[in-house]
Amino acid sequence: MSELLAISSGDPSGIGPEIIGKCWDGRHAADLPGFFAIGDPAAFALVWNGPTRLIDTPAQAAEVFECALPIMPVVDSVPAMPGHPDLDGARCALQALEMGVGLARAGQAQGIVTGPVSKIQLQKVGFNFPGQTEYIAESCGVARQNVAMLLAGPSLRVVPITVHIRIADVPAALSIDLIVNRARATAKGMARNFGITRPRIAIAGLNPHAGEQGAMGSEEADIIAPAIDILRAEGFDVAGPLPADTMFHAAARARYDVALCQYHDQALIPIKALHFDDAVNMTLGLPIVRTSPDHGTAFDIAGKGLANPSSMIAAIRMAGAAWQHRQNYEGP
Amino acid sequence: MSELLAISSGDPSGIGPEIIGKCWDGRHAADLPGFFAIGDPAAFALVWNGPTRLIDTPAQAAEVFECALPIMPVVDSVPAMPGHPDLDGARCALQALEMGVGLARAGQAQGIVTGPVSKIQLQKVGFNFPGQTEYIAESCGVARQNVAMLLAGPSLRVVPITVHIRIADVPAALSIDLIVNRARATAKGMARNFGITRPRIAIAGLNPHAGEQGAMGSEEADIIAPAIDILRAEGFDVAGPLPADTMFHAAARARYDVALCQYHDQALIPIKALHFDDAVNMTLGLPIVRTSPDHGTAFDIAGKGLANPSSMIAAIRMAGAAWQHRQNYEGP
Repeated sequence: MSELLAISSGDPSGIGPEIIGKCWDGRHAADLPGFFAIGDPAAFALVWNGPTRLIDTPAQAAEVFECALPIMPVVDSVPAMPGHPDLDGARCALQALEMGVGLARAGQAQGIVTGPVSKIQLQKVGFNFPGQTEYIAESCGVARQNVAMLLAGPSLRVVPITVHIRIADVPAALSIDLIVNRARATAKGMARNFGITRPRIAIAGLNPHAGEQGAMGSEEADIIAPAIDILRAEGFDVAGPLPADTMFHAAARARYDVALCQYHDQALIPIKALHFDDAVNMTLGLPIVRTSPDHGTAFDIAGKGLANPSSMIAAIRMAGAAWQHRQNYEGP
Repeated sequence: MSELLAISSGDPSGIGPEIIGKCWDGRHAADLPGFFAIGDPAAFALVWNGPTRLIDTPAQAAEVFECALPIMPVVDSVPAMPGHPDLDGARCALQALEMGVGLARAGQAQGIVTGPVSKIQLQKVGFNFPGQTEYIAESCGVARQNVAMLLAGPSLRVVPITVHIRIADVPAALSIDLIVNRARATAKGMARNFGITRPRIAIAGLNPHAGEQGAMGSEEADIIAPAIDILRAEGFDVAGPLPADTMFHAAARARYDVALCQYHDQALIPIKALHFDDAVNMTLGLPIVRTSPDHGTAFDIAGKGLANPSSMIAAIRMAGAAWQHRQNYEGP
């Protein structure tokens, strides 16, 4: 096969180019699948000394990957300065994202691994999405409520049901439909991307002690339990609503394949406490494979050689494994 | 010195008597300070085969501790059945708690370590407090808002600012005064009980990414930041409001001595994910030392020899160390 993974550079003033270069350095030690970068070649040369080779088509990437990092250049790039984001860099990041998604959708890449971008910078150049995930969903023709954000580390996978909203807005944002949709996307995503055909799904309660039989909140009885009933009737393996504080120690984690959490920090606190350096963000519910490292642009350390490629390494490995699982997937 | 730590048995049908006995078994291996139990001697004999000695006064405990577990009996106890809580057991648990607090307040015990109780059972026998903590605060003449619940494990200490309330009620329950009071109690408690005279306090934001400059909530700017300003003006070492999801990995934990969290699960998720078996609950702001293991009665495994004493061992050790630190404490 000639397809490799496409990796968008992210903001060229951030740590994206450096960690992608470091991933190529570590491709054998980490047993990584083949990949090519999309971005401004100059941004790579500025922060990484390894060999690069410019490519015009994804098909060329496989030929050169062993000897050099294949880079597919964005057009009209302007040199970026590490640690000093500008609008040209934002345009470069956006173009790399668009190209990567297009190639993955066209089957010319196994999937896309997205480098870190600055949402604030992207919005200054006309990007009208909360983040890369929503852009990719729309590019693939999938409604936002039908994708799920999976954060996955070696011993824990979590999916937040609500994400970037105020805590005060979480109770009203939860609904039976939303929980059921997220769980369905999660279950299908676990089968397609991980080969886990009937995942054990643990669903957290919203309130302390999962409400303690209604003593501290009714969302468990009114929303979460009915959603679980529907999911069970559809044949899913679901436990909950579980007290969130006792879901994440080692013995508890061994009882499920993925935890659905009601809000951002309920999911992100445990995954980052346990797997800060090697957690991966994967979007479930897409026709293509999409992962990204679970960190930002880190403009403060860009260009200094200090960036840790662990999460990008894990993101590339998980994307490659997901593509393999999809070759064998026979579900809907 | 002749004072030892008092340990209330908790519900005699729960795992309290068994884990207290196991702590006495492990007193040398765990290098525990001396202690005596308060409860129904029959409840201990039923689940633990070690030597016991009945005592009438705390002063007798030190003499016998090396050779036997000293037990100060509650009056009029009725034999309890492990795993089958009843009202007599609830009365026994309550009496043991009352006796232990009284002895600690009178200086006849170094402090009290409370065994696990069933709040539901206690309330059936007229106990009108949300939990043991509030009862102890009132017994000591301290207002509830001036105590703080510290959960402490080997690599993390957390204090929830709000505790057993619905998520929907958290935003309205937070106030500048509440955060300032909790932080003051926490700082003083760290000095008195841990010998950390100027603790580094990290305060979490409420919303995802600590609100991201107001993009996801205003509580950070309206409540938390002003509370931090007041605390800094008073000389406290405070960082925040910090994004909760990036506060709890190892490198982040090394930057503070204690984390103040805005709600129950924001504090309890990380402490239980990291230290499920050996976290300790300590009440800060009391004139006496009070710790407890961070688990419940576990009626389902009571009497089966399966209970893990790790958290009780840690609670006894922390109480003993706190008593020592208090001997050297010269603050207000």
